[in-house]
Amino acid sequence: MTVRIEDIGRSVRETAYAVRGPIVARAQELERQGRRVVYCNIGNPQALSQRPLTWIRQVLALAEYPELMDRAPPGLFPEDAVAAARRVVEGTQHGLGAYTDSKGYRFVREAVAAFIQARDGIPADPEAIFLTDGASKAVQTVLRLLVDGPGDGILIPTPQYPLYSATITLYGGAQIPYPLDEAHGWSLRRESLEAAIARARAAGVRPRAICVINPGNPSGAVLSEANVAMVLELARAHGLAVLADEVYQENVYRPGDRFVSFASLLVKGGFRDVSLFSFHSTSKGLLGECGHRGGYVEARNVPGKVMDEITKLQSVALCANSAGQIVTYLMVSPPGPDGASRAGWERERREIKESLARRAAIVEEGLNRVPGIRCNPVTGAMYAFPRIELPPGVGDAEWCLALLEETGICVVPGSGFGQAEGTFHFRTTILPPAGELQAVVERIASFHAAFTARWKAPATP
Amino acid sequence: MTVRIEDIGRSVRETAYAVRGPIVARAQELERQGRRVVYCNIGNPQALSQRPLTWIRQVLALAEYPELMDRAPPGLFPEDAVAAARRVVEGTQHGLGAYTDSKGYRFVREAVAAFIQARDGIPADPEAIFLTDGASKAVQTVLRLLVDGPGDGILIPTPQYPLYSATITLYGGAQIPYPLDEAHGWSLRRESLEAAIARARAAGVRPRAICVINPGNPSGAVLSEANVAMVLELARAHGLAVLADEVYQENVYRPGDRFVSFASLLVKGGFRDVSLFSFHSTSKGLLGECGHRGGYVEARNVPGKVMDEITKLQSVALCANSAGQIVTYLMVSPPGPDGASRAGWERERREIKESLARRAAIVEEGLNRVPGIRCNPVTGAMYAFPRIELPPGVGDAEWCLALLEETGICVVPGSGFGQAEGTFHFRTTILPPAGELQAVVERIASFHAAFTARWKAPATP
Repeated sequence: MTVRIEDIGRSVRETAYAVRGPIVARAQELERQGRRVVYCNIGNPQALSQRPLTWIRQVLALAEYPELMDRAPPGLFPEDAVAAARRVVEGTQHGLGAYTDSKGYRFVREAVAAFIQARDGIPADPEAIFLTDGASKAVQTVLRLLVDGPGDGILIPTPQYPLYSATITLYGGAQIPYPLDEAHGWSLRRESLEAAIARARAAGVRPRAICVINPGNPSGAVLSEANVAMVLELARAHGLAVLADEVYQENVYRPGDRFVSFASLLVKGGFRDVSLFSFHSTSKGLLGECGHRGGYVEARNVPGKVMDEITKLQSVALCANSAGQIVTYLMVSPPGPDGASRAGWERERREIKESLARRAAIVEEGLNRVPGIRCNPVTGAMYAFPRIELPPGVGDAEWCLALLEETGICVVPGSGFGQAEGTFHFRTTILPPAGELQAVVERIASFHAAFTARWKAPATP
Repeated sequence: MTVRIEDIGRSVRETAYAVRGPIVARAQELERQGRRVVYCNIGNPQALSQRPLTWIRQVLALAEYPELMDRAPPGLFPEDAVAAARRVVEGTQHGLGAYTDSKGYRFVREAVAAFIQARDGIPADPEAIFLTDGASKAVQTVLRLLVDGPGDGILIPTPQYPLYSATITLYGGAQIPYPLDEAHGWSLRRESLEAAIARARAAGVRPRAICVINPGNPSGAVLSEANVAMVLELARAHGLAVLADEVYQENVYRPGDRFVSFASLLVKGGFRDVSLFSFHSTSKGLLGECGHRGGYVEARNVPGKVMDEITKLQSVALCANSAGQIVTYLMVSPPGPDGASRAGWERERREIKESLARRAAIVEEGLNRVPGIRCNPVTGAMYAFPRIELPPGVGDAEWCLALLEETGICVVPGSGFGQAEGTFHFRTTILPPAGELQAVVERIASFHAAFTARWKAPATP
């Protein structure tokens, strides 16, 4: 008797992950049939023409094949890239082919600590940093510590990134959704959070932690300093740990907006009684090195014994991949100000950032011109989460599927992220190249008009 | 209130992983104090002077930094390495920086299928192959499907590789240990397996699957074809899935021995009613590319809906790392017979294999000369699991810690792998370079004599 689907654990079967769900499967099927598909379902910049930073790839190539440092003719690599590769190879001790420490290479954790220190002006401890296969794995490890059964609740935003809902379900815990305020740029309100906690407690669920995504996915919003401080106050009041998903910290587009890390306010506000887990990744920002699966979690106000449990969980599958750890190192260790690589590195980053900002504006402004679609300002991250007006009885999954079938544009239904009862949305990335993105927005506009017209004027009464 | 250790889930706290457990932590502490430690605790070849295969690293470097293919002067890279790198970059579609398919790059899965087909003379389906961050993650994903609570039992060998016990505990399932027959070269006996199943059933545990490690870790033994066939018969009789950990398939040292894959006997024996999950890795064999975390699982006789669950679990953390997938591709796609790289690739592999075989003999013969230590033939994998006679009341953890403190040699206690009641063992890798390994064996010999002498002649009566 072979394994049957009925034999698979309930928690596995109930886990849902919309970003790569049925609509994406259908898109891949259409592509195999020869249709052209524009993938706006996932924040995967290099799949949509963004080029990797040269600095990263030069150092990585040299570190993978160190003989090249001696064999390459002068001029093939800039000197500072060779020097960085030598530091990398020395830091790894045995090169990229050996298992690393369970927590990740020590020299990378030191570089990450220095990066946090420089970013926030606060001390940071390399021993409280864990390198992981992308931030997703880091989030899963921390949730694994906190969720042991249906009585353990985790506060997650509505809308949220489905990594959170999927992982909480997989571990058999309880989701405690709290609404983001769509009418006020997807900001957080303390009273909504308090209400969510009260509802959970009334249902016998113990709130263990609050997840905050800043800048927001799918919301595309940058949280204010006041919002970040409020979450820390709330966490203190209710004994919650804070999971701060800060993978989009470099993706802030609106002049005047500023990314404020949870770690900085935790330290400056003296929140010694709040445990914080902050996540960062090589996949977003201006790198977009998604495939390399680099990421980390930094723990603060977490006892050593609990951190040892993270190390243990990491150790069971040995360590995060070495190349991803090196990309993480290079993310936080740019070329020096006087090095030959510096000017090119600055130019590449500036071009990517300006282009992302331009594309955020194209999506926001373009969609807001469509009757029946309303889009909050896209001030950060890589997404818009516009609201759509739909005919009675029609859901956003149906709308997204029809959009895919009729235009080849692949977006994700709002229902995959969570949304206020009776409202409908979709998530699109801002990542297609600007020219193409303009066309995407226009096709969405004409599709939406045609789609809603079908219901307004039924063929037979 | 911060997170406390008492708040962490029981299943997490009860998970134990000896290979990187307290003895290794102590070794690292000693090293920080300036002591020299010989790490024989983990199969990490490149940390012990094994060099990466040049072919792998040349192609990987070019794929990470494709501009190099055009910019490198002729002769810096062999032509076939450049051609392979072009195939890789084309196969990835968007380079190594984009997310891959949740199951892994299609072209790599096709290459793995071709490799299995060539190895076993059986058909293989790329859609039944899932690329993972090392084989460990693949094992964890399959166990995740099969284990949903304390009533789900998984048969694991005694001694076993603690990935299995750790993961089953973490998922809240039941371990069903079955003994390997130490008196007969760590082989499997059907009656022991039947007895283990009967005991589990009597305890209310439903046996779901059997894990077999071949060649064995920590046993160092290669299973006979008859043993593999017997496991398939047993699995059919009891409705078990088979998890075949075949990561050491290239590490077979004794002339006349041969690795027989579960897949080959499954197909040739017509076991259509047995679900098989076979695991392979880039970390072992003659590559030793542990840090790159490349691996795969191939599923057979597994319904599409169950395979979809694997894809879904993979998709929640998006995909396995791209570089590890490329190393997997290169493991199964050697340089062509007429290419410039072929001769060097063959020479490097031959040298590694001969050296491993020599080192297996040094460990086996050396330890068998020590009074009070008995070691089965090390015919495969990278480990010996010798039995040690200890004074009454002394355990192998104590012995291993004393060995570390007195000699700087880091091995893992048998208790971390499981062993017959009243017997004691340790696991050592065969990986230090031959000269050093000889010294390791001699130091273990004199340590063991001194250690046991202390108990034989107590200072005070």
